[in-house]
Amino acid sequence: MDEFKLIDNFLKKLSGKNSLKLEDDVALLDSDAKLAFSTDIIVEDVHFFKNSSPRIIAYKLLESALSDLAAKALCPLYYSLNLSLPKDISSDWFELFSLSLSEIQKKHNIYLLGGDITNCDKMVLSVTVFGSYKEKIIARNNLQEDDLIYVSGYIGDSYIGLEYLRGNLTDDLFKEYFIGKYNFPEARTDLRDILANYANAAIDISDGLIQDISHLASSSKKQVNIDYSSIAYSDNAKRLISKNNDLKYKLPFAGDDYEIVFSVAQKNKDALVKLAKKSDILITEIGYVSRGNSVKLLNCDNEKLPNSWGYKHFKD
Amino acid sequence: MDEFKLIDNFLKKLSGKNSLKLEDDVALLDSDAKLAFSTDIIVEDVHFFKNSSPRIIAYKLLESALSDLAAKALCPLYYSLNLSLPKDISSDWFELFSLSLSEIQKKHNIYLLGGDITNCDKMVLSVTVFGSYKEKIIARNNLQEDDLIYVSGYIGDSYIGLEYLRGNLTDDLFKEYFIGKYNFPEARTDLRDILANYANAAIDISDGLIQDISHLASSSKKQVNIDYSSIAYSDNAKRLISKNNDLKYKLPFAGDDYEIVFSVAQKNKDALVKLAKKSDILITEIGYVSRGNSVKLLNCDNEKLPNSWGYKHFKD
Repeated sequence: MDEFKLIDNFLKKLSGKNSLKLEDDVALLDSDAKLAFSTDIIVEDVHFFKNSSPRIIAYKLLESALSDLAAKALCPLYYSLNLSLPKDISSDWFELFSLSLSEIQKKHNIYLLGGDITNCDKMVLSVTVFGSYKEKIIARNNLQEDDLIYVSGYIGDSYIGLEYLRGNLTDDLFKEYFIGKYNFPEARTDLRDILANYANAAIDISDGLIQDISHLASSSKKQVNIDYSSIAYSDNAKRLISKNNDLKYKLPFAGDDYEIVFSVAQKNKDALVKLAKKSDILITEIGYVSRGNSVKLLNCDNEKLPNSWGYKHFKD
Repeated sequence: MDEFKLIDNFLKKLSGKNSLKLEDDVALLDSDAKLAFSTDIIVEDVHFFKNSSPRIIAYKLLESALSDLAAKALCPLYYSLNLSLPKDISSDWFELFSLSLSEIQKKHNIYLLGGDITNCDKMVLSVTVFGSYKEKIIARNNLQEDDLIYVSGYIGDSYIGLEYLRGNLTDDLFKEYFIGKYNFPEARTDLRDILANYANAAIDISDGLIQDISHLASSSKKQVNIDYSSIAYSDNAKRLISKNNDLKYKLPFAGDDYEIVFSVAQKNKDALVKLAKKSDILITEIGYVSRGNSVKLLNCDNEKLPNSWGYKHFKD
């Protein structure tokens, strides 16, 4: 594997106006925009299975990083890559990887700005994504008392996909649907208008719905009250839950959904619901903010919750 | 190793105004400056020895990335880190690592903007450094015919240090000096005024003086003529060369110097020399640019040059 060849043959076609053709040691950032960035690492055997296809790896790397921008209502612009790859990586592997990046680039209208490639027995991939914002960043520490809590999309499909991959579920009927959800996350950049107009605080769901809500609560020093029975599941997930009610207690704690949970002032509820309907985007009201410093789960059987719940992410 | 603890205990004190206290998923970039960035990966056993001290690793990581900014006359502002560390990394290790980063931060007046930490058996560290520029970036593809070629500082000390570490040199007299040069690179950010005012093209020396000059030549589609006998060595290196003349043929091809090689229009020579003298910065004129697409070495015995020399980085 020759770094220069990989760049020339595959990566240059992913570059854009600020990339200096990937030929120099630096790349430029737009000077006429307010910019922010986010950066993530994914490691073989930790964040993805060793023999995952390059397409799966590209999605896990780039879409999950873009999800951080999506939660802040940032408009994604470009990204840089740091790739540590085994020496024997094939040209075919790299071609499919770069084609998958290209696919994601088109979807989000972004391009490759720069990066570095080196050798390592283990695949360790980092991405830094840059986006622009208008007035302010939607922080995670800005929950306001009496805000309503909303979450986009469905919860838990990705975890069910992982359970299929682990061999813990065997029913074949919707297996492909769930595995697809796990393998190919999608950053909810389509929520940008909704969040920019109405969200006080927001976070993307990577650790699990409840854990990420607890991040909002502890950063904002507020209590979040969640109606456990209001959490929305896909029809496919509901089918599995109907056969195995315990799933309902696992899914809100399972990671990799990449949906966005956010808070909205009560007075903006009607406008929010109207915009979501107009945009054909599913959002579900699942709770509200009050004084305090915790997450309280309503309408659920607390004994069925995971043991680790309730203290890990909290500080006094 | 708990990511949150490492951030709270060690990294927060390295953050600055745009870092959002390292508490959110994004960090901000200055919107009132023209920004560029560079990114690098270093891997255990590839770029540093497995048991290198955390201070050595911090220097290799951050100073070598800052060197890319230095070659472009960028003013460094901040950086982000992606750290993949073994699970059993100790708190002491991390404390010394972050203290060393703090030392480098003070020297260059920069701070930590954001990042990510994850587990991997092998240490894989990425850094993205951001800097600002005034009018334009000094590109590597902008050599002009008849430009003079200059290089900062001394060549080869770092390679000699590596030879000591490999056990290929045993003379103990200046061992510490050379090993220090190899272990603790220093980005030549002090050349900023010189480069911003006078350089047409520039690159930092990471692959080796001659290889990096060949990058300038091939990007710019020009011939660079180097007077081999004019390359400057430290007194300590001269002492070794006097005992082993072959070294003189190795050092200009050896990496990790992190000096800067740049081209200057003939008409600016006097002003350049005056500014360098005033700033007490050693620069040496080592050649000139002509029409063509290669690097020509003058005043040297071509048979003694490394075999690989002369084709690797060139395209027709």
